[in-house]
Amino acid sequence: MIIVNTGNGKGKTTAAIGQIIRSLGQGFKVCLIQLFKGEEFYGEQKILSGLGNLDFFSFAKKHPYLFKSVSVKDAKLDCCLAMDKVKLLSLSPKKYDLIVLEEFNIALRDKFIDEREFLTLLQQLSQKSNIIVTGRSAPQNLIDVADIVTEMKEIKHCYNKGIKAYKGIEY
Amino acid sequence: MIIVNTGNGKGKTTAAIGQIIRSLGQGFKVCLIQLFKGEEFYGEQKILSGLGNLDFFSFAKKHPYLFKSVSVKDAKLDCCLAMDKVKLLSLSPKKYDLIVLEEFNIALRDKFIDEREFLTLLQQLSQKSNIIVTGRSAPQNLIDVADIVTEMKEIKHCYNKGIKAYKGIEY
Repeated sequence: MIIVNTGNGKGKTTAAIGQIIRSLGQGFKVCLIQLFKGEEFYGEQKILSGLGNLDFFSFAKKHPYLFKSVSVKDAKLDCCLAMDKVKLLSLSPKKYDLIVLEEFNIALRDKFIDEREFLTLLQQLSQKSNIIVTGRSAPQNLIDVADIVTEMKEIKHCYNKGIKAYKGIEY
Repeated sequence: MIIVNTGNGKGKTTAAIGQIIRSLGQGFKVCLIQLFKGEEFYGEQKILSGLGNLDFFSFAKKHPYLFKSVSVKDAKLDCCLAMDKVKLLSLSPKKYDLIVLEEFNIALRDKFIDEREFLTLLQQLSQKSNIIVTGRSAPQNLIDVADIVTEMKEIKHCYNKGIKAYKGIEY
């Protein structure tokens, strides 16, 4: 099954984390591949890294549009390594019940990874594992092949009023 | 801060679980009060119950609209006990950094709890704790007092095609 969490609202990543927790609770094996998630540990990473049955990989820690010190070329190179990891999973025998591809929608939007190649890998992978892809701006071709698509739609957000990110809520 | 996860799509509960994991990872204390969550353990409950710093309460395990054996009167009584718990938290000194009120939107929608009383308690509680309220059909008055509101909007769902709930994904 292919699940997509997209939209401009809060909850895309936290819903994927909740899904990981639910799957681990059922005794399933989970793989989390994150893009653009910063070098500092988010709160969830501290808990997740302590749980069994979860393998956790992080690539392209900084997005070039947010960090001027990172070039688009470097980001593409890092995303390419993440894609190699996905490719390896698609070619290997089933190891995980759930694979979470965090912020891959952003990498697709910014053309850091090739959409056609990604969709081919995704359909191979989904034969043996459930997959969650997160990030705003999911491409229509991904939505077309997905089984469940949720748009996390921002109805109201206090940060629009200038309030800064809260520890434990946003990170 | 008051956060509301509503809408007809997937991710309201899992986003709240992810938020709990994020908060626990930051060393925060969390209280989860669930309504209508069934007597059998969901996957997430197995993991959550093993984590420190989390207190977990469950009321009104079955919703009368789904289980004919449960009367509306019983559900109201159970929701009343849940409200007593919320009242106690609002009157006590701060114990939790995050309080998650799972499916309380449903109890509000079905008038199992009094909206005015709930909103008063919520505003008192939000002075000392962050609060997440989940469930479809969040009432407008709750949206009005909330700081962050996300609508989890169903774009596509394979269950509409008759596929049944997957273990580790839906429970």
